[in-house]
Amino acid sequence: MSGRVRIVDVASLAGVSTATVSRALSAPETVGRATRDRVMEAVRATGYRVNGAARDLRQQRARSLLILAPNLANTFFSRIFSAIQEEASAAGLAVQISDSRIGREKLVSLGYDGRADGIVLLDGAIDPDVVNGWRLPMIQLCEWNEAYRAPRIGIDNAAAARMAVEHLADLCHRSVLHVSGPDGNVLAVTRREGFSDGVAARGIAGTTLAGDFTLEAGACAARRWAELRPRPTGVFCASDECALGFISECAALGFGVPDDVSVVGFDDIDFAHRFLPALTTIRQPREALGRAAAKALVNLLGLAQVADPGDPAIAPTIVVRSSTAPPPTDDSRVATITLD
Amino acid sequence: MSGRVRIVDVASLAGVSTATVSRALSAPETVGRATRDRVMEAVRATGYRVNGAARDLRQQRARSLLILAPNLANTFFSRIFSAIQEEASAAGLAVQISDSRIGREKLVSLGYDGRADGIVLLDGAIDPDVVNGWRLPMIQLCEWNEAYRAPRIGIDNAAAARMAVEHLADLCHRSVLHVSGPDGNVLAVTRREGFSDGVAARGIAGTTLAGDFTLEAGACAARRWAELRPRPTGVFCASDECALGFISECAALGFGVPDDVSVVGFDDIDFAHRFLPALTTIRQPREALGRAAAKALVNLLGLAQVADPGDPAIAPTIVVRSSTAPPPTDDSRVATITLD
Repeated sequence: MSGRVRIVDVASLAGVSTATVSRALSAPETVGRATRDRVMEAVRATGYRVNGAARDLRQQRARSLLILAPNLANTFFSRIFSAIQEEASAAGLAVQISDSRIGREKLVSLGYDGRADGIVLLDGAIDPDVVNGWRLPMIQLCEWNEAYRAPRIGIDNAAAARMAVEHLADLCHRSVLHVSGPDGNVLAVTRREGFSDGVAARGIAGTTLAGDFTLEAGACAARRWAELRPRPTGVFCASDECALGFISECAALGFGVPDDVSVVGFDDIDFAHRFLPALTTIRQPREALGRAAAKALVNLLGLAQVADPGDPAIAPTIVVRSSTAPPPTDDSRVATITLD
Repeated sequence: MSGRVRIVDVASLAGVSTATVSRALSAPETVGRATRDRVMEAVRATGYRVNGAARDLRQQRARSLLILAPNLANTFFSRIFSAIQEEASAAGLAVQISDSRIGREKLVSLGYDGRADGIVLLDGAIDPDVVNGWRLPMIQLCEWNEAYRAPRIGIDNAAAARMAVEHLADLCHRSVLHVSGPDGNVLAVTRREGFSDGVAARGIAGTTLAGDFTLEAGACAARRWAELRPRPTGVFCASDECALGFISECAALGFGVPDDVSVVGFDDIDFAHRFLPALTTIRQPREALGRAAAKALVNLLGLAQVADPGDPAIAPTIVVRSSTAPPPTDDSRVATITLD
C-alpha cells in the first residue's frame, strides 16, 4: 500500500495542511510537538514515505556531502567523520563516505552520478584530472594537492614537525631520527621538510627512515634504529601509530622509552595519553578540523550562512608526556648505579 | 552550461549510443577501455552531469545504504565501515553514515526521507517504535534489540565472555573481576551473563564493576580494583579500550601487568597486539562482520544475488598474548627472590 499513499492523504488524516506534513518530516524541529505527533501517527497509519527522488528532482540537489578518504579503516578519521556528520546533520545534509581506493572508473563517476552536492577530500594523491573533472564544490582537508582547484583546511605540518624537533633539542638530544610517512604523500613530504629545517636550525644531526604511518612501519624502524651506530637518542615519528609501533618493538628488543630513547608522535590519537609510556606528540585538533571543513563546504553550497570557520590553518600544539626525557649519558648511568 | 547538456549530446560527440554513455558512467567496468575514454572525454568537453534524482525517480530507489552507529567517533567501527563500503560499492550502492544520537525527530525521519534503501543498524538502544516504524530492509549488526523486526549478525557474546573466564581459570586465577559495559547496553548485559556463567561453572569468585567500554572507565576501574581486599588477580574488561585504560592506570598506581594482575580485553582492536604488554583479548572479526551485514542487506534489497553470508553468529576466538599469566603467590615471589 505504501507506494500509493500521497501526502494529501496524510494531511487529511492528521487534519493539517500538506505543507505541515512536509515540514514535520523534513524539519521536525519547526513544528510543534502535538502537531508533529499527529502527523507521525498519520504517516504510520497510512504507510506514507517521502519520495526522496521526486523532491530532489524539484530541488535539483542530492542533499548529501561525500567524504572521500584514502583508507576508511584508518582510526585517525573517526573523530573527523563524527564532527563532519554533526555539522552536516545540522544543515540538513546526509553524509556519504567512500574509500578513494575504489578504482579510477568508480572515482571518476563519483563526481557525475548526482549522489553528492559537494566533497570533503581527505586524499591528496588522487589524479588531479579526476578531481578537477568533478566540478562539484570541494574542500581539501588534512591532505592536499596543489593541483586541486579547491580550498584547503589543515594544520601547518612543517611548523608542527619543527616543534617536535625543538622539543627534542631542548631536552639536549644532539642526534635525532625521523620515521617519515610514504614518499608520495604530501603530509610525509611536508613533515620531513619541517624536520630537516628544524635540525638545521638547531645544528644537530638528523637522519630519516621512510615509513608509512602504520604500527608495523614503526616496529620496523625500531629494528633498523637498533642497528645504527651511534644510535640517535631522539625519534620523531610522522604518526602516533608509527610511534606506538616503534616503542612497542623497542620493548621487545630490550630498550626502554624514554630511558634509552625518546619518542615523539604526531596526531594525538585517543590512545596516546594511555600508552605506556604516555606519548609526547603533536596534537591535530581533529574535531575542529572536521567541523571547519563541513562548515566551509556548507558555505560553498550556499545551503546556510554559517559563521566563518576561521583560519584554515588550525594551530597544532605539542603535548609533552612521558615518552621524552633528556638523552641517556654514560655519566648518568654510572651515577644511577652508584647511588642505588 | 552544464545544467543544459543532455545525454544525447554526449553520445553524439563520442559517436556512441546513449545507452553506452549511461553504462560508461554507472557501470564503467562493463564498457571497453577505448569507448569509456571517448565517453569520458565527451562528458568533460560538454560538462555533462547525470541527473541522479531523475534516474532515482524512475528507478524508485536511493541506491544507498545507511549505517547507523551509536558513536561515529568510536574507532571500533572503522574496519566495519570499510568492509561495508567495499561490499556496497561492489553492488553499486553508496554508503551513508549517521550517528544515532541526532535526536528522536531526526531519527524518525531517517526512515521516511527516501535517502536510503536499507539500514545497517549498529545500535540496539534506539526506541523500537522508531526502528520498526521505518519499514525499510534492515540488518542488526553487533548490537541488537529483541524488539527490532530485523535479522541479526554478530558474535555469540556470552560464549566469548565465558572464553575469557576459562582462560583466566586455566591459569589458576581463583578470583576474577569483570569491568562491564554500561547497564542498558545489550552487549554489556550479555557479556556480563557469560562472565557469571563462566565463574559459576569453574567455581571461582567473580566480582563486577560497571564501566562504559571507554579508556577512562578502565582507568577508573583500576583505581577501584586497587582498593579491593583481597584484590582479584584476574580482570576481564568488556572492551579493549577499557582494558588498555585499566593497564595504563595500574602502571600509574605501581602495579605491573601481568605480574600483579592479569588483564583480558574484548575486540582485538589494531593497537591490542602492540600495547605494552601485548593484550590478551577476545577477537571480533570486524571485517567479516561488516561484509556479512552488507551482503545480507544487498540480498534483502534484491539488488544482487550474493552468496549466503553464512552463519549469522560469526565465531569469536581468544588471542593469548602477554597481559595474562598465572596469578602472583607469596610462595612464587619468595622463590624468585631466593633464586636471584
